[in-house]
Amino acid sequence: MAAEGLLFLDFYTANPLCSPSYTPQDIVGGIQDSELLLPELLKKAGYINKIIGKWHLGHRPQFHPLKHGFDEWFGSPNCHFGPYDNREHPNIPVYRDWEMIGRYYEDFKIDLKTGEANLTQLYLQEALDFISKQQASQQPFFLYWAIDATHAPVYASKQFLGSSQRGLYGDAVREIDDSIGRILRHLQQLGISENTFVFFTSDNGAALISAPKQGGSNGPFLCGKQTTFEGGMREPAIAWWPGHIPAGGVSHQLGNVMDLFSTSLSLAGLQPPSDRQIDGIDLLPVILQGKLIDRPIFYYRGNEMMAVRAGLYKAHYWTWSNSWEEYGKGIDFCPGQNVSGVTTHTQEEHTHLPLLFHLGRDPGEKFPLSFASEEYQRAMEWIAGIVQQHKDTLVPGEPQLNVCDKAVMLSVWKVLLFPWNLLGQATLLSAATVFVL
Amino acid sequence: MAAEGLLFLDFYTANPLCSPSYTPQDIVGGIQDSELLLPELLKKAGYINKIIGKWHLGHRPQFHPLKHGFDEWFGSPNCHFGPYDNREHPNIPVYRDWEMIGRYYEDFKIDLKTGEANLTQLYLQEALDFISKQQASQQPFFLYWAIDATHAPVYASKQFLGSSQRGLYGDAVREIDDSIGRILRHLQQLGISENTFVFFTSDNGAALISAPKQGGSNGPFLCGKQTTFEGGMREPAIAWWPGHIPAGGVSHQLGNVMDLFSTSLSLAGLQPPSDRQIDGIDLLPVILQGKLIDRPIFYYRGNEMMAVRAGLYKAHYWTWSNSWEEYGKGIDFCPGQNVSGVTTHTQEEHTHLPLLFHLGRDPGEKFPLSFASEEYQRAMEWIAGIVQQHKDTLVPGEPQLNVCDKAVMLSVWKVLLFPWNLLGQATLLSAATVFVL
Ligand SMILES: [Ca+2]
Ligand SMILES: [Ca+2]
Repeated sequence: MAAEGLLFLDFYTANPLCSPSYTPQDIVGGIQDSELLLPELLKKAGYINKIIGKWHLGHRPQFHPLKHGFDEWFGSPNCHFGPYDNREHPNIPVYRDWEMIGRYYEDFKIDLKTGEANLTQLYLQEALDFISKQQASQQPFFLYWAIDATHAPVYASKQFLGSSQRGLYGDAVREIDDSIGRILRHLQQLGISENTFVFFTSDNGAALISAPKQGGSNGPFLCGKQTTFEGGMREPAIAWWPGHIPAGGVSHQLGNVMDLFSTSLSLAGLQPPSDRQIDGIDLLPVILQGKLIDRPIFYYRGNEMMAVRAGLYKAHYWTWSNSWEEYGKGIDFCPGQNVSGVTTHTQEEHTHLPLLFHLGRDPGEKFPLSFASEEYQRAMEWIAGIVQQHKDTLVPGEPQLNVCDKAVMLSVWKVLLFPWNLLGQATLLSAATVFVL
Repeated sequence: MAAEGLLFLDFYTANPLCSPSYTPQDIVGGIQDSELLLPELLKKAGYINKIIGKWHLGHRPQFHPLKHGFDEWFGSPNCHFGPYDNREHPNIPVYRDWEMIGRYYEDFKIDLKTGEANLTQLYLQEALDFISKQQASQQPFFLYWAIDATHAPVYASKQFLGSSQRGLYGDAVREIDDSIGRILRHLQQLGISENTFVFFTSDNGAALISAPKQGGSNGPFLCGKQTTFEGGMREPAIAWWPGHIPAGGVSHQLGNVMDLFSTSLSLAGLQPPSDRQIDGIDLLPVILQGKLIDRPIFYYRGNEMMAVRAGLYKAHYWTWSNSWEEYGKGIDFCPGQNVSGVTTHTQEEHTHLPLLFHLGRDPGEKFPLSFASEEYQRAMEWIAGIVQQHKDTLVPGEPQLNVCDKAVMLSVWKVLLFPWNLLGQATLLSAATVFVL
């Protein structure tokens, strides 16, 4: 996909969060009607919208994806945490549209001993069928393929079990890789690849608390999921659109998953809503014309702006990995990594003298710049202006992220305004555009 | 080069050593006449042999490369540590064949302030000229291109300064990358690419003590140069030979830089000497036919076998990063990394119960397997047999490596039997074969 499309090396998720750790059923909140989600807007332009996989914007009826712009759904309201005891906490349900058709572990098997489950294949087939159907009826479509594979508990289909050198986790990644390849080839075989924009990304870094057997690796990046270090928020990202996006490109544009909202609207010839603040930008000039747009990245955790990236610099205003209490129980978001004064187990404030890293020379955030250096002074002067502007333009009272508390899904969407599931490990967005428009 | 050749993902250097830290001139030893170096053997088969760059097998006259099989030399006996004071310790000399033609810093400028030096360009031009000359006279040749760029102090030519996002170190890497591309294109333009086998590798992992401004990164691997963790010894390696090696291949063959001795002889149609133990294997079946040869990798530091790799398992019999004394002075071979009980600052013995890692699931050596697991028992049974056999067949009294002591160069070559310079950061071996034979 990267060889045929544009690879983003500096693309970020909007936050590094997991879901509340134990009982997703306890979340009572969900997406509000006042929010305008991408499928709602696309629908007005004639698109058929489908979500395959995790929704995670509330499991009560009023939060159902078909109430929020999607026409079809196959998947579950949450990741398949569990298995649950089926008394106080039933297993996670699986829906086809409005109907609950079964539950993980019961009707949709996951063998925790062998790691075998054919869920990714089910989700793949569902995607291929949906695409075929829309192509046959010349119908523009938006497919949000939010598989949950590589989330713990990790699984793969029989044909992929043992196929990698990386254990079960690697097998799952290979299955996802293969599935995405099949979707792209399917689009080509149907003759609609030049009318279909596909974007691949993930919603957070690898969960190192589950590594190595149930979690991935963030390569050279520091820490993982749940943190605002690069390992928690920098994501693989590829844009694919044969005939429009030159093959084999690489972009250093600072991107954010929130940009997919504005970019998708732009592809569909729509304007973003004007009655609210939109945080993302339209990446089409980057993707189609190779432009670079100067913009910062803000790293939030809870309602705290932890860090800011501008150009190759990243300034940490707060540092935190996880609490001493968790750490004492063997929960470690940065296993094997320890950067003194950076991967702190208390929430350390640096707002008066932020820790500054140069991510070009030091992508692993291991060597803070000397406070006394001219380079520090110059960079922080620039960044301070950016932060001031950000704070000045923040809509007051706007709820922001909370660290894994029960309002997290609600508050995320207040900020994001579009429906990228934040909890999948690998997400393919396939939005057909300009097709028979 | 990788796209046109075969990429080795599991290739190792023979040891992770630096030179003695301060005064390479103090080394009085060097390569012994009794050793048979690759160019000596190739010479008998009609090859012209040239070394460009660092020799590092002794700087006294009897150790000169032209005494050990090379016909030509442009470079220095050591890395350009320094600058020196030119009283007790003069700057490192540069030779053209027998003649000393100048010294680093004095006649071969390195601007430590801007990082500008044109040395890589000088070495590149020397390589292109040598290749042209041999092609013109239809002469089979062996070129050992042992540039010293990316070794601290890091430098790049003016045209590459500021060209990367990685600072001066990245600029130097780009210049090497560009230079290798030019050499490959030159071979193609001269019409001898299908007769020329080219191998690229490095002699040790990035020196993290110099990172990030004067040193590289080892990506996901643990620690760096001087250690027997993967960051110290696993190296990029690519074999290139258009028309013979299929393009774009990837091999998981466990390889060792020592294999280049046997492989090169095999390419030249020669037999390895039968009067001594040869540690390397002929990789041609791997390179040309995609075979996988079952063989272990031994990780030595000093005369201690620190670790063994068999398949995807790596067992640590000893662990050590660097001493508390050095660490206290701010010297750190594993900056930002800390794996409890693994990156130890004392030399910890585990010979009775080795620490075991699965490098497929855990390339970063962060999660030792449980001693009680069945997987541990099974793997260690296998590895114990390999180690026993290794110890049984070691030639008694054979000098082995010493950690950065003054005999290191000598003892290294006693083991290796061939002249790959261990101190360069990036080494290109270009051995023309079967050309007009
Ligand atoms: Ca996730
Ligand atoms: Ca070296």
